[in-house]
Amino acid sequence: MSVLIVGSVALDTIEANGKKMKDLLGGSAMYASMAASYFTKPSVVAVVGNDFPSKYIHLLNKHNIDTSAIAISAGKTFRWHGKYSCDLNQAKTLNTKLNVFANFSPALSGEQKNIKYLFLANADPQIQKQILDVAAKPKFVALDTMNFWIDTKLKELKKILKKVDLLLINEDEAVQFSKQNNIIKAAKFIQNLGPKYIVIKKGKSGAVLFYKDKIFSTISFPLEVVVDTTGAGDTFAGGLMGYLAGINKTDFYSLKQAVIYGTIMSSFNVESFSLKKLSSLTKQDIQNRLKQFKQIIKF
Amino acid sequence: MSVLIVGSVALDTIEANGKKMKDLLGGSAMYASMAASYFTKPSVVAVVGNDFPSKYIHLLNKHNIDTSAIAISAGKTFRWHGKYSCDLNQAKTLNTKLNVFANFSPALSGEQKNIKYLFLANADPQIQKQILDVAAKPKFVALDTMNFWIDTKLKELKKILKKVDLLLINEDEAVQFSKQNNIIKAAKFIQNLGPKYIVIKKGKSGAVLFYKDKIFSTISFPLEVVVDTTGAGDTFAGGLMGYLAGINKTDFYSLKQAVIYGTIMSSFNVESFSLKKLSSLTKQDIQNRLKQFKQIIKF
Repeated sequence: MSVLIVGSVALDTIEANGKKMKDLLGGSAMYASMAASYFTKPSVVAVVGNDFPSKYIHLLNKHNIDTSAIAISAGKTFRWHGKYSCDLNQAKTLNTKLNVFANFSPALSGEQKNIKYLFLANADPQIQKQILDVAAKPKFVALDTMNFWIDTKLKELKKILKKVDLLLINEDEAVQFSKQNNIIKAAKFIQNLGPKYIVIKKGKSGAVLFYKDKIFSTISFPLEVVVDTTGAGDTFAGGLMGYLAGINKTDFYSLKQAVIYGTIMSSFNVESFSLKKLSSLTKQDIQNRLKQFKQIIKF
Repeated sequence: MSVLIVGSVALDTIEANGKKMKDLLGGSAMYASMAASYFTKPSVVAVVGNDFPSKYIHLLNKHNIDTSAIAISAGKTFRWHGKYSCDLNQAKTLNTKLNVFANFSPALSGEQKNIKYLFLANADPQIQKQILDVAAKPKFVALDTMNFWIDTKLKELKKILKKVDLLLINEDEAVQFSKQNNIIKAAKFIQNLGPKYIVIKKGKSGAVLFYKDKIFSTISFPLEVVVDTTGAGDTFAGGLMGYLAGINKTDFYSLKQAVIYGTIMSSFNVESFSLKKLSSLTKQDIQNRLKQFKQIIKF
């Protein structure tokens, strides 16, 4: 099955590891769709300005990503400028210009409305709701969010969670959202709002999957050199959803496998700026790292 | 084989979870020996004041811990007063009174000098050196330290590391010690100073074992209720060393198993103040939690 990914496309300026890189391809939908493309055919619903370099569209198409629902609006592409402290754990936003993303009103084609696997990448909950309202009968909906929406659109976010099968959320944000200072308690709080599955992302400390009273927990892949962590969560989610769509299964066992693939994909992503490494992998690279990963956790 | 544990015995005052508990049994040698006692017979080398409650000696003896080398000096027992913020990750020291521990000069009996498994729990590197100088031919020496000694006795610490097989160190301390902002780089730095094995403890995010160019990484056991994290690292190390001494093996495979037992033991420790939970376990409790742990990480 294919996966529909709704989210942002951005041109990022990133300061990390003593370097400053301008106008890099970024945005939640870009990282997620590139990661998913190794497992299935992703379609992206997003908006860019007429300044968006066509080479990026070519890059996506080369990876068999359907870009026909990326609208080109008059104006500038969404821009984000972030700076990382030396531990690369969290970026400080220096500047955000929503530009054409501010008026993004996604439209789905007939085929897209019938999509079975839907990933609502990090975006305004109102945009996420618009998609959920027109999606005919998705089999599996995953949603990602961030502290900004928890702060500003909590009510809308809670409402749409009723229609969501999997919520992906950072550890800090899970604590903020649930007002529980423990991730097991936070997950229980969120489970009561709708999602059957919850993945709490812990950055370099791994991820935890919750399902009913079951917990699956994993480390992240240990890396000696981390270049830029931008998009790590989006990549994780894209790998996870791409894998599920690819095997067309949504049981707990498959979700665990999907969390591992998300972990592997995000480990590649942080090894370069933008999508450079993520877009230059082979399926064998992924299998090799998975093998290494299994070796590292085996006892 | 039995294990010799050299470290502190303290009476702790701990503020955590809205409670303030006074004169609790604590100190690195206490947590470590109690954890080790489930796998082998530990002997403790330490000092207490003549105010030290005899009930604690009875408790240790009940667990088959040899207390004959716990010296009783005129004066007061070492006291530590710490306060945890609500995430329980790190305590702020409010007060430290070394008391009799300030003049601790450990002496080993003839039998103790021939010990095969030696754990130098967190203490002044000069005390740790004294033990290493008289130990005849230990098969395996593990050493724990902390930021305070890295700040104040770096030279002494580096010197004794040449005689150490396993260094246990917290993530922050490994970064501080190596001046490397990545634990793989930090481990490489430490490997060059002597220790064959390095365990970097990451608190609630697990632990990583380094050996040559190999890495073994694990999560910690997920807990919904954490009461007091005092002694978690000491308990981890005690469980690890007790397990190794119990099976009398020191190869990489055995070290991995030992890291898992350390992880399990420290998960019990943080569920109560002081040694309350840690001293009331059965071997079956440990095996049950190990089984749960394996279930949580399986995919």
